[in-house]
Amino acid sequence: MNTLVLRKPRCLSIESRPEPQPFPGEVLLTVVACAICRTDAVMWWQGHRDLVFPRVLGHEICARRHGDPVGQYYAVWPGNACGTCSRCRSGNEHLCQSMRITGFHRDGGFGELLSASEKNLLPVPSALSPELAALAEPLGCAVHALGRSRVSAGERLLVYGAGTLGLFLASSASVRGAKVSIADPDPEKLIKSRDLQRCFNISPCFTSDGSLPQEADVVINATSSPDALADGLERLAPGGRYCLFSGLRGHDAYPAELINGIHYREAELIGSYGCTRHDMRQALLLLEQYASAFSFLIKQRIGLHDVERVLPSVLEGKGFKSVITSYS
Amino acid sequence: MNTLVLRKPRCLSIESRPEPQPFPGEVLLTVVACAICRTDAVMWWQGHRDLVFPRVLGHEICARRHGDPVGQYYAVWPGNACGTCSRCRSGNEHLCQSMRITGFHRDGGFGELLSASEKNLLPVPSALSPELAALAEPLGCAVHALGRSRVSAGERLLVYGAGTLGLFLASSASVRGAKVSIADPDPEKLIKSRDLQRCFNISPCFTSDGSLPQEADVVINATSSPDALADGLERLAPGGRYCLFSGLRGHDAYPAELINGIHYREAELIGSYGCTRHDMRQALLLLEQYASAFSFLIKQRIGLHDVERVLPSVLEGKGFKSVITSYS
Repeated sequence: MNTLVLRKPRCLSIESRPEPQPFPGEVLLTVVACAICRTDAVMWWQGHRDLVFPRVLGHEICARRHGDPVGQYYAVWPGNACGTCSRCRSGNEHLCQSMRITGFHRDGGFGELLSASEKNLLPVPSALSPELAALAEPLGCAVHALGRSRVSAGERLLVYGAGTLGLFLASSASVRGAKVSIADPDPEKLIKSRDLQRCFNISPCFTSDGSLPQEADVVINATSSPDALADGLERLAPGGRYCLFSGLRGHDAYPAELINGIHYREAELIGSYGCTRHDMRQALLLLEQYASAFSFLIKQRIGLHDVERVLPSVLEGKGFKSVITSYS
Repeated sequence: MNTLVLRKPRCLSIESRPEPQPFPGEVLLTVVACAICRTDAVMWWQGHRDLVFPRVLGHEICARRHGDPVGQYYAVWPGNACGTCSRCRSGNEHLCQSMRITGFHRDGGFGELLSASEKNLLPVPSALSPELAALAEPLGCAVHALGRSRVSAGERLLVYGAGTLGLFLASSASVRGAKVSIADPDPEKLIKSRDLQRCFNISPCFTSDGSLPQEADVVINATSSPDALADGLERLAPGGRYCLFSGLRGHDAYPAELINGIHYREAELIGSYGCTRHDMRQALLLLEQYASAFSFLIKQRIGLHDVERVLPSVLEGKGFKSVITSYS
């Protein structure tokens, strides 16, 4: 089978490999669509704390059972959790003590075939295209973050970053009845996604021109910009929640005054990382219901050979989603 | 009536003043006991963002109706909330948009008489002494923080700081079934409170000798030491909560790596500030049930004339509670 192997940072090669051998409880799948995540681009560029080389990347996967060319599509939860530790038992399978992530610790969807646990297969509604179904993982992460932040109807949400994830967060929160603003320093990004904003009643604001709301009940960062943390914490209403959805790039330091604001205003800084199968099932329902709006987020369908060419622009955070749909 | 007035930082004087005139809905009270909080000492030393001069300090108050020398004791909630704003209506009266705090924005318990809202009077169980009932406010703040942190049975809690508040936090969490450790850099403090630790099954650990638990589900700082934030965040288990119960002193800065740990481990940094009437009612029940253990936290009963003398040691965080019980 054809695979794209990352041997070390910035060293990718197309390789023919034997079929994966499923472990007990696993099934062999044919990958139908695999979207490229910015984390894939980061791993390609510099590695990642959870990545083990050599690796077939890809964790945003839609597949069907191997040898069943007209059968059911499945979105694949990329977590491989033990199911028995205290975190798994408490519904936090994404924090499993012995978590191994597809596309990080084991081979993922940048290859024609994939072995995955039967339990990780989430049936795709029949009206949904495999390219959109591949976005169930990133949208699942957004759904997870909204749950962590306890965003509820009528609350004012401010999202920093108008990339795919920022728009997923904003749209899903709007569906929950929140009053949503989305901020980005790049006017072009906000202009490009105008139709989606209108569809979900999202207010765009340019980070630099003072149009950001003075106060928000919930803030989420879908950007690694350190400014989004300091700026967002200061806009939090008393009792507000800041969801740290993205890690922060660079080595800035944050002053005690900023942290003390969390104390005096009884705010919360809430980390969010990954998603559960339940979050992905919710995401599949949202993708089905708003398929025409979300289709806009798929910029292009590409072949396995094109991945290396598109990675630099993914790394830069330019444009929306590239989805691998051809492995030949 | 006799009052102790803070005219500006470090400028206290005993003054005779006319009786306070209750506003509508308020009643005139005779203060029976008022405990001194470290915040009182900080306000005396340097002022406070919520303090308006000149001021009669004191917000840890037990009182009875004026002219009723054998009647019911009341612990007095020091908040003065509007009761109608969105935060009041959502059960967060302590975050009221127009909050005015007794002993901060209006005169408090370092005076013989006090005017307070009828709604703020919380009946003291008959077996409880007024000195202990005056601790319903600080214990209420501890109860509030445990609620914010969602500490539950079986969880591992690490409290930094073995002063009165640290011991209140640790004891109340132990009553909830948590497995509690308390850390302090000062061995003497931990040794002094050994009986209380035994009574509540709290494990003492010296910050400096490596005896702190490697991992905790919940961490709470009852110290303004910046080290307690960095050290405690690193000990948080995935999915853990750090309750910022105390503001941080000084102007340290906290590196992005520390904040990113909150993201990757799906941790939470949760501010806690003040308490509600409900928290104080819970505190009164705890004080009644564990009166003999908590009595240890009252170091001395003093007169209004002694306050200025004890403030320096309160500021240093040495010893436990001084409670004013004589105003003549």
